[in-house]
Amino acid sequence: MLHNIAILTGGGDAPGLNAVIRAAVKTAKVQYGAHILGIPDGYDGLVNGSDPWELDLPEVAGLLYRGGTILGTSNRGDPFNYPVEQPDGTVIKEDKSEILIERLKELRVDALIVIGGDGSLTIANELFKRGTNVIGVPKTIDNDLSATEVTFGFDTAITTATEALDKLHTTAESHHRAMVLELMGRDAGWIALESGIAGGADVILIPEIPFKWSSVMKRIDDRRKKGRKFSIIVVAEGAFPEGGGQVVQQTADETHGLARFGGIGHAVGLEIAKQLKMETRVTVLGHIQRGGKPSTFDRLLATRLGVEAVNMVVRGEFGHMVALRGGKVIPVPLEEAVGNQKLVDPNGQMVMVAESIGISVGR
Amino acid sequence: MLHNIAILTGGGDAPGLNAVIRAAVKTAKVQYGAHILGIPDGYDGLVNGSDPWELDLPEVAGLLYRGGTILGTSNRGDPFNYPVEQPDGTVIKEDKSEILIERLKELRVDALIVIGGDGSLTIANELFKRGTNVIGVPKTIDNDLSATEVTFGFDTAITTATEALDKLHTTAESHHRAMVLELMGRDAGWIALESGIAGGADVILIPEIPFKWSSVMKRIDDRRKKGRKFSIIVVAEGAFPEGGGQVVQQTADETHGLARFGGIGHAVGLEIAKQLKMETRVTVLGHIQRGGKPSTFDRLLATRLGVEAVNMVVRGEFGHMVALRGGKVIPVPLEEAVGNQKLVDPNGQMVMVAESIGISVGR
Amino acid sequence: MLHNIAILTGGGDAPGLNAVIRAAVKTAKVQYGAHILGIPDGYDGLVNGSDPWELDLPEVAGLLYRGGTILGTSNRGDPFNYPVEQPDGTVIKEDKSEILIERLKELRVDALIVIGGDGSLTIANELFKRGTNVIGVPKTIDNDLSATEVTFGFDTAITTATEALDKLHTTAESHHRAMVLELMGRDAGWIALESGIAGGADVILIPEIPFKWSSVMKRIDDRRKKGRKFSIIVVAEGAFPEGGGQVVQQTADETHGLARFGGIGHAVGLEIAKQLKMETRVTVLGHIQRGGKPSTFDRLLATRLGVEAVNMVVRGEFGHMVALRGGKVIPVPLEEAVGNQKLVDPNGQMVMVAESIGISVGR
Amino acid sequence: MLHNIAILTGGGDAPGLNAVIRAAVKTAKVQYGAHILGIPDGYDGLVNGSDPWELDLPEVAGLLYRGGTILGTSNRGDPFNYPVEQPDGTVIKEDKSEILIERLKELRVDALIVIGGDGSLTIANELFKRGTNVIGVPKTIDNDLSATEVTFGFDTAITTATEALDKLHTTAESHHRAMVLELMGRDAGWIALESGIAGGADVILIPEIPFKWSSVMKRIDDRRKKGRKFSIIVVAEGAFPEGGGQVVQQTADETHGLARFGGIGHAVGLEIAKQLKMETRVTVLGHIQRGGKPSTFDRLLATRLGVEAVNMVVRGEFGHMVALRGGKVIPVPLEEAVGNQKLVDPNGQMVMVAESIGISVGR
Repeated sequence: MLHNIAILTGGGDAPGLNAVIRAAVKTAKVQYGAHILGIPDGYDGLVNGSDPWELDLPEVAGLLYRGGTILGTSNRGDPFNYPVEQPDGTVIKEDKSEILIERLKELRVDALIVIGGDGSLTIANELFKRGTNVIGVPKTIDNDLSATEVTFGFDTAITTATEALDKLHTTAESHHRAMVLELMGRDAGWIALESGIAGGADVILIPEIPFKWSSVMKRIDDRRKKGRKFSIIVVAEGAFPEGGGQVVQQTADETHGLARFGGIGHAVGLEIAKQLKMETRVTVLGHIQRGGKPSTFDRLLATRLGVEAVNMVVRGEFGHMVALRGGKVIPVPLEEAVGNQKLVDPNGQMVMVAESIGISVGR
Repeated sequence: MLHNIAILTGGGDAPGLNAVIRAAVKTAKVQYGAHILGIPDGYDGLVNGSDPWELDLPEVAGLLYRGGTILGTSNRGDPFNYPVEQPDGTVIKEDKSEILIERLKELRVDALIVIGGDGSLTIANELFKRGTNVIGVPKTIDNDLSATEVTFGFDTAITTATEALDKLHTTAESHHRAMVLELMGRDAGWIALESGIAGGADVILIPEIPFKWSSVMKRIDDRRKKGRKFSIIVVAEGAFPEGGGQVVQQTADETHGLARFGGIGHAVGLEIAKQLKMETRVTVLGHIQRGGKPSTFDRLLATRLGVEAVNMVVRGEFGHMVALRGGKVIPVPLEEAVGNQKLVDPNGQMVMVAESIGISVGR
Repeated sequence: MLHNIAILTGGGDAPGLNAVIRAAVKTAKVQYGAHILGIPDGYDGLVNGSDPWELDLPEVAGLLYRGGTILGTSNRGDPFNYPVEQPDGTVIKEDKSEILIERLKELRVDALIVIGGDGSLTIANELFKRGTNVIGVPKTIDNDLSATEVTFGFDTAITTATEALDKLHTTAESHHRAMVLELMGRDAGWIALESGIAGGADVILIPEIPFKWSSVMKRIDDRRKKGRKFSIIVVAEGAFPEGGGQVVQQTADETHGLARFGGIGHAVGLEIAKQLKMETRVTVLGHIQRGGKPSTFDRLLATRLGVEAVNMVVRGEFGHMVALRGGKVIPVPLEEAVGNQKLVDPNGQMVMVAESIGISVGR
Repeated sequence: MLHNIAILTGGGDAPGLNAVIRAAVKTAKVQYGAHILGIPDGYDGLVNGSDPWELDLPEVAGLLYRGGTILGTSNRGDPFNYPVEQPDGTVIKEDKSEILIERLKELRVDALIVIGGDGSLTIANELFKRGTNVIGVPKTIDNDLSATEVTFGFDTAITTATEALDKLHTTAESHHRAMVLELMGRDAGWIALESGIAGGADVILIPEIPFKWSSVMKRIDDRRKKGRKFSIIVVAEGAFPEGGGQVVQQTADETHGLARFGGIGHAVGLEIAKQLKMETRVTVLGHIQRGGKPSTFDRLLATRLGVEAVNMVVRGEFGHMVALRGGKVIPVPLEEAVGNQKLVDPNGQMVMVAESIGISVGR
C-alpha cells in the first residue's frame, strides 16, 4: 500500500497547475487515503532541501480557480546540471541527482508526480531510469508536445491573446492604424496562429514559416486599397524574416533575466511604419498570457490529468505520463513522450484555414 | 464551375453560427470567387419564400465575435412536416419539400450548406436523397452528436455555466447555503457534467444517471458534518429521480412556448430545504447559456468548419457533413452522422473523474 | 492607544466585503500596529459566542479578488430581536443585546466595525447609543442608501446583469423572441434600471413605477411592426402592475428560505406570450448577481471604505458611518444615515434618459 | 425648429464613443424627429470635405457594446493649425477654420456635437466664439478633466489594467519575480493609481510624484525579507525618477508614429533586476487599454451624455459641455471646462489610501 506521494511543478507556470494539484490531492485522499506531499519550487526544492508540506483537502479548497502554482516553480532546478556559484562568482554546473534521490528517500516518498514541460519530463525520465517511481503530467503553454493532443494552459493563453486582439480591433479601426501584437511562441507558433484566426488577424507570422517582408506589406496595402484602412498583425516572438536580416533587439541584462525588449514585434512595427507610411502601434503581451484563472476547458483537462496521475501511481505505471488522446486520458511512456516537439505544419490544415479566409502568413 | 452557394441556419442558436457563416463567405469569395446567398430563418425561409440576400465581405465583417445568427433561425421549418394553420384554427402538418426544392432552383442555387442540429441535418439528408447538393455543418450546444468529437457553442455554454458557478460559490460560502443551478441538457448531461467539474460542484445530476434522493442528501450532509457548511448542486434540466416521483412543474402556455418553470431544479431545491432544513436557493440559467460572444475555442472550430464546408462544396462531396475527428476537420456521410446521439456513459472516464474528486452524481 | 478592533459583516453578501476587510486589516496593522479580530457570522457570532480569530496580513492576502466574506454572515442575528426556539418548536424573539455587549468586553474589544446594510447599521446605531464604540461601513447591493452616493457591490451586480442581457440579445434576435430577465430589487429598481439601460433593454419595469400591461405590450408590438422582431424586457423582482392584479407565485417553504419561484418575471413572460402570441423566455438571474470577483470600481471603493473606517476608529469618530460624497470618503452620523432609503425618482434624470432613447418603463 | 445636428469624434478613441453616438441619434430621432449627420474622422473630415452620412436608428443598432467609434477619428485635424504638406515635403500649419465653417453651412448644419478631449473641446470653444452652435461631450481615457467628475472610457481602461494585474499576480507569485506593468498616463496618474490599488500592486509610480529609486527598491526588498518573494510594480508612462536621470528610450520613427519602446517601464525593470538581483519581467499594456467593449459604467455614462447633449442642442445651450457633477449630468460653459487638467494630488485621499495599505508611491 502507498503511503506517500510527492508532487512538484517545474518550469514556467501555466493556468491549471493548481487544478492538477487539487485533483491529485482529492483523488489521493478521497479514493485511496494516501498522503500527498507538496515539494516547493520544483526540483530545486528537493536539491536544496526546502521543507515540503502535507497537502490535505483544506489546502486545496479554492485552487480550481487560481492561476499559478501554490508549490512555486523554478527554472534553474535541473538536478543533473545544477548551477553552483563558485567563490570567484562564476557558476559551474554539477550533477546533484544523488542528493535529490536521497532526499526523496529521507522523505519516505513512494512515488513522485512531476508536472512540467519537456525539460522537466526529460529529467523525470532520467530519474525513473535511476529507480525513482515517477509519473509525469505534461505542461506547456505553447501546446508543442507531440505526445498529447492538447496541454492545459494553452486554451487560457489563446483566450487572453484573443481578448487582446478584440480590444485592438476597435481602436485600430477608429484610427486607421496598423496594430502589431507580439505573442509567446519561441519555437512553436500555435498561440499566434490559433488566437490570430480566432481574433480576426490580417497577418500572422510564426517561427515555422520564415516570412517575406514584401508579403506582409502587400497584404496590408491591399486592404488599404480596398478601403479597409487598418490591419492587425500577430507575431510570435520566435518569428523571423526569410534570410534573417536585421532585427532591432536589446537584451538588458541576461544574468538577471530581464525580459528582452525591442524584439521581432517592434521590428515588424517599425518596418510597416517605414515602408507603408502608416501609423503603427506595437504591444508585447508578455507574461499576461501565462497568468490568470484557468479557462473552463483548462480546469477540466487539468482535473482529468490530476485524477489519472494518481490512478497511475496506484496502478504502478511509473515512467509514464498522462496524455490526452482521442478524448481519453491515457498513460504514455515518458521515453516516447519527451524530446518530440509538435510544430505547426506549414502545409497543415490550420495554416490552410488561415489562408482560406484571407489571412497572410507572410509567404 | 460553381456560381451560387446558399447557406442557412436551423434549430436553436449557438455561439459560433456567425463565425461559420463568415468563414464560408470569406472562403467562397477569396478562394473561389463564388456567390453566396443567405437564406433567412432556416428551412422556413425557403418554404415561405422569404427573400435571401447575397453575402459579401462587408456583410460578414465583425461577425467573428457576434453571438446568434444574422440569418435568423426557426424551430418550425421542417419542410416534410410543415405546420399549416387551418381556417378553424387547428394546425395540420403537410409535406412542403417540393416547394423548397423548387425555390432552390428558382434561386439558381448549386449547393446548399445547412448549419444545424440532428433535426436539421436529418432533413438535409432527406433533401440530398431527393437530389439537392447538400453539405451539413453540425451544431448542437449540448455536444451530443456522435459523428463529431465536439460541436461549436458547447465550450461557450460551459464557460458561461462555469462562471455562474464561480459566482454562486462565494455567496454560498458566505451564507452557508445550498445553491442549486439548473443547466441545459434535456437528454444529454454534458453541459452539467463538464461545467460542474470545472466549477467545483459537490453534486451533479444528469439525465443519464437517475438519481437517488438519499445520495444527494447524504453528500450535502456529509459536507456539513465536516464543517463545509455550503454545497453547490448542478442539475441538468432533464435529470430525474430513480422511479420518477413527484416533480413540481408548471407549464404556462405550451402553444406560445413560454419556458416552463418549477422544473427539476426547483424540485431538488425544495427537497434539500425540506429534508436538511437548510437555506437553499435555486437559479435556472436558461437561455443565457446559448448567447453571447463565442469563446476562442468555438470561434476557431466554427471557422474551420465554415472553411471546410465550402471546400467540400467545391470538391462535390455532397451528402456529407464536416466533422472534427482526431484534431482534423473531415467529411463524414450524413447518413452515418444523423440519428446517433452521444450520451454520457455512466461508467465512462468523465463520470469517474467526477467521483474520484468527491463529486456525487446521485447514485 | 487602541489595542483591539473587531470587525463583522451582516446581512446579504456583496462583492467587495472581503476587500473592505483586507483594507481595514492592512491599515490597522501597517499604519497603527493595532490588533484586529474577525467575528464570524455577523452579530449572531457575538450572541452565540462563536470564536473570533485574529486577522493578520497573511489572512488577508488574496482577499481583494474574492467575492463573499471570509467572516461569514447571517440574516438572523438581530441581537435586539433574537430568535429563540422554544421547547414546543415555536420561535419567540428576545433581546440579547446585553449578551453581545458583554461578549465585546470579554474579548477586550475597543471598537467594532460593522459592515452591513440598513438593518445592520440600525443595530449598530442602537449599540452605539448603549455605549459601544461603533463605526459603520455601508453595504447594499441595491444601492438604495441615501447617505452615500454609491455602495460597493452594486457595480459588480449591474455588470453581471448587463453581461446576461448581452447574451440574451443575440439569442433573442436570432429567434425573434421576447426575453424577460428578472433582476434583484425588491423596493429599489436601480439594478434593473441601470443594467437595463446599459444592456439595451426595450422595456424596464421597476417597483417605483407601477406598470400598465397595455404600455408593455404596446412597446413590444410597435417594435414588431417596425421589423424588430425581438424584445428584451427587464423586470425588477419588486415590480408590479398598476392596481396589483394576479401574479403567479409559489413560495415553496418560507421556513427554510427556498427562493420563491413563479414571481413577477414569469408573470410578465406569461402575459406577453398570451397577449402577443409571441415566443417568450424567462430567466431569473438570482444569486449570481451577488457573487463573484468584485469589479475594479467595487474593489477600489471597498478599499477606500476599509481604510477610512480604521482611520475613524483611530480618530474616535464613533457612531459614524463612512460615506462616499462628491468623490470623497467622509464620516456621516449613523443617526442620519439609517432609515433613509434612496429610491428611483420616476421623474428623475435616469428614468428620463431611459425614455429618451425609446425604452418603455411601462407607464 | 432644428433640422440638422452634426456629430464628430476627435482625438484618441475611448470605449463608449459609440454609445454616445447611439444615444444622441436615438434621442434626436425618437424625441425630436431631428436629422443627425455623422462626420467622418473628426474635424479633419470637415476640413478635407469627406462625405458625412445620415445616422438613423438602424445605423446605431448594436453600437452600445462596440468599442471605438464608427465615425473614425483623427489626431491631426486642428482646423486652426492644419498641417499642409509643401511641394518640397516639409509641412507647414495653416488656419483652415473658415473652410470648416463654410462646410458646416454647406451641409446646412444647425448644431455641431463634438465628442473629444481637451484639445478637441478647445477647438470647439474657438468655433463657438466664431458663431458655430457647438455642444461638447468630454472624452479622455485618462480621466484628467476638471470640469466633470469622471469621463467615460476610464472605467473600462482601469478594468483592463486591473485584469492584467490579476493575471500577473499569479505568475509573479509562482516564480518569485518582480513584475513591472507600464500603463497609460503621460501627465495624469489616475489609471496607474486606481488600477494599481484595485489590482493589488506593491509599488505605484505616477507622473505627479517623482520617485526615489531607493524607495522603490526598499519596498520590494522589505517584502522579500518578510517572505513575500514577488512584487508587482505599476508605472504610468509619464512617471520619472527624482532629478530625472537616465531613462532607456528609443523612438523609432516619430514621423509615422511608431510607439516608442524602451520607456520608463523597461527602465524600472532594468534597475530592479540590477540593484536587487531579482528576476524581473516588463509588460507594456499599450493600446489594449483603449479598446474593447465599454464597461457597464461607461455605457451608462456615455448614454447619459449623449441624451443630454441633444437636449442641450434643443434648449440652445451652445458653447457648453455636458458634465457629470454630483451624480447629475449638467451643462458647463466650455470656457470654464477647457484647459483645466485634473491631476492626482500627492497629498490627496487616493494616494493616502494607497499608502495606508502599504503601497509605496516611490517617495
